Amino acid sequence: MAVPGFCKVRDGDEGGHIRFRITRTAMHAPEQVQTAAELADRLGRSAQWIVERTGVAERRVSERSMAEMGAIVGREVLGDERPDLIVNASLTPIQLIPDSSIFVQHELGMQGVPSFSVHATCLSFLVGLHTVGALVASGAYRKVLLVSAEQGSVCRDFDEPESAALIGDGAAAALIEPCADGEDTGFLGYAMRTWPEGSDLAELRGCGTAHHPNDPATVPQDNLFRMRGPRLWRLALKHVDEMLDECFGQAGMARDDVDVVIPHQASGPMVEMFQKYGFSDHKVVKIVGSYGNCIAASLPMTLAHAQATGRIQRGQTALLFGTGAGLSIGAAVLKF
Amino acid sequence: MAVPGFCKVRDGDEGGHIRFRITRTAMHAPEQVQTAAELADRLGRSAQWIVERTGVAERRVSERSMAEMGAIVGREVLGDERPDLIVNASLTPIQLIPDSSIFVQHELGMQGVPSFSVHATCLSFLVGLHTVGALVASGAYRKVLLVSAEQGSVCRDFDEPESAALIGDGAAAALIEPCADGEDTGFLGYAMRTWPEGSDLAELRGCGTAHHPNDPATVPQDNLFRMRGPRLWRLALKHVDEMLDECFGQAGMARDDVDVVIPHQASGPMVEMFQKYGFSDHKVVKIVGSYGNCIAASLPMTLAHAQATGRIQRGQTALLFGTGAGLSIGAAVLKF
Repeated sequence: MAVPGFCKVRDGDEGGHIRFRITRTAMHAPEQVQTAAELADRLGRSAQWIVERTGVAERRVSERSMAEMGAIVGREVLGDERPDLIVNASLTPIQLIPDSSIFVQHELGMQGVPSFSVHATCLSFLVGLHTVGALVASGAYRKVLLVSAEQGSVCRDFDEPESAALIGDGAAAALIEPCADGEDTGFLGYAMRTWPEGSDLAELRGCGTAHHPNDPATVPQDNLFRMRGPRLWRLALKHVDEMLDECFGQAGMARDDVDVVIPHQASGPMVEMFQKYGFSDHKVVKIVGSYGNCIAASLPMTLAHAQATGRIQRGQTALLFGTGAGLSIGAAVLKF
Repeated sequence: MAVPGFCKVRDGDEGGHIRFRITRTAMHAPEQVQTAAELADRLGRSAQWIVERTGVAERRVSERSMAEMGAIVGREVLGDERPDLIVNASLTPIQLIPDSSIFVQHELGMQGVPSFSVHATCLSFLVGLHTVGALVASGAYRKVLLVSAEQGSVCRDFDEPESAALIGDGAAAALIEPCADGEDTGFLGYAMRTWPEGSDLAELRGCGTAHHPNDPATVPQDNLFRMRGPRLWRLALKHVDEMLDECFGQAGMARDDVDVVIPHQASGPMVEMFQKYGFSDHKVVKIVGSYGNCIAASLPMTLAHAQATGRIQRGQTALLFGTGAGLSIGAAVLKF
């Protein structure tokens, strides 16, 4: 099938330029709210400590699986349409085999649609958007459902108050299509890099071959998320400027030229850092206080929230920015 | 950076046409051989039963992690070169967080290279090649290390002789670059589809939120691979013809026009089925008897083996074909 209206990558384009269109976005916040006060006893910390330290006043906890949440947002962006590809961009699986994308598709009740996952921990949606954008720009697919859904609350280690207080559940989806004739939407700049020197700073050491659940040497803590927050933060800050320079250099824009900043909601301090890097604070969309860090779902939840509340309009530009276990850092200038 | 020599997707191209070049391939077979005779006692089946039923006379068992194996094949295809992207396309992780790609990169000793994973169980390499191909064709990256490495032997369920006898360990890698000026290599046709109605036919139910290792209701069998082989096989056979038609239709070729068939080595019977579907048997590359089913690594191991033994030459065409838990089926016509 030929692809009419397909937006070709142009000669001389920068490497980060990928043309696509985010047709629709949606987010899902599970009904059950868990406040800092409700968590305080379990964490052995006061509600005030939790809020001051993490910036998270409340988070949602889901009784639905990631697949059920993914299907809720999937149906919302699809309406009656059938995608020609489903890409799951989530960290926490329901089970190891099959791949999580299949469970999202199963909940959607669709047979014969291709599905797979892109996995870059908290950056999965950003990397997934770049990947899906390239597939759409190359003509391989024309209507892609990109879903991030996380039930990370199951993996909280209540003996580690800071990380346990950060994590929340939630989901978001985007429908990705070729950009319309005459439009020039998509990524104007994109940079993502990984520093494995930080691989032990945010870990869930179990659920694989190193600490297999059936290995008698595996301890319960291996199966829960642990983080060395201050060291991770310091390593990330070393590289933020170079990532922003790379991304904005490709876009040919100054940092504060973007209309809105849509960060991964890693923590309260993280969403407050952008002023130091040359962005007006009023442009930064912050939802971490109400939803916590929803792992890979945080960034698309923030994008969906920004669209629903009118903070990003068609034709405007956004910085998408995040960090992930690895350590990985990703930054993109999106023309919406 | 502008991208000289970048092979643009042409107007009117079929959806499955993606231009890229597989510059080098490599495979790794762990030293330790485990024969059918050595497995017989543990499985409660004779060596003859094992070989007749699965087609696997011997498999390799690795004491190295998937990251160490991935780095061995990664170094072999990279030589002294530094990739601008590392994509892991493997199923069995070392641990849940960070993503496996980071551990491969860590073993390679590279800081600041982007890395992430593409996950489609046994089809991860095929889907990864399509994805990386699109990223390379769109100009986003110019030198991509694509790695599949599996230590699936850790997840064998010896109470299920057939699946336990199938699984082997191994790794393979490919270096992916833009196609050279005047060349037209890459995918001429590509089709991949998923039927979640088969999601319970090949499973590892643990290592996620549904049967978390710390949940007292989780039993050891949940953490091992189980398969309903005959039902999976029947579901797959229902869709093989349509997948081949879709893929060869895009390529504008008859099935037996391909020079070589490079299948995922799912089982002995699976690599023997191609004659029924219109391919000459002498074209089919079969390594399952010596290495078993190495999950996502099987297909690239077969490709690397075919190149090393001269069974595929530059400019020739190959059918890449496989099935994966899901159920997913993938087929591609590769111009090498």
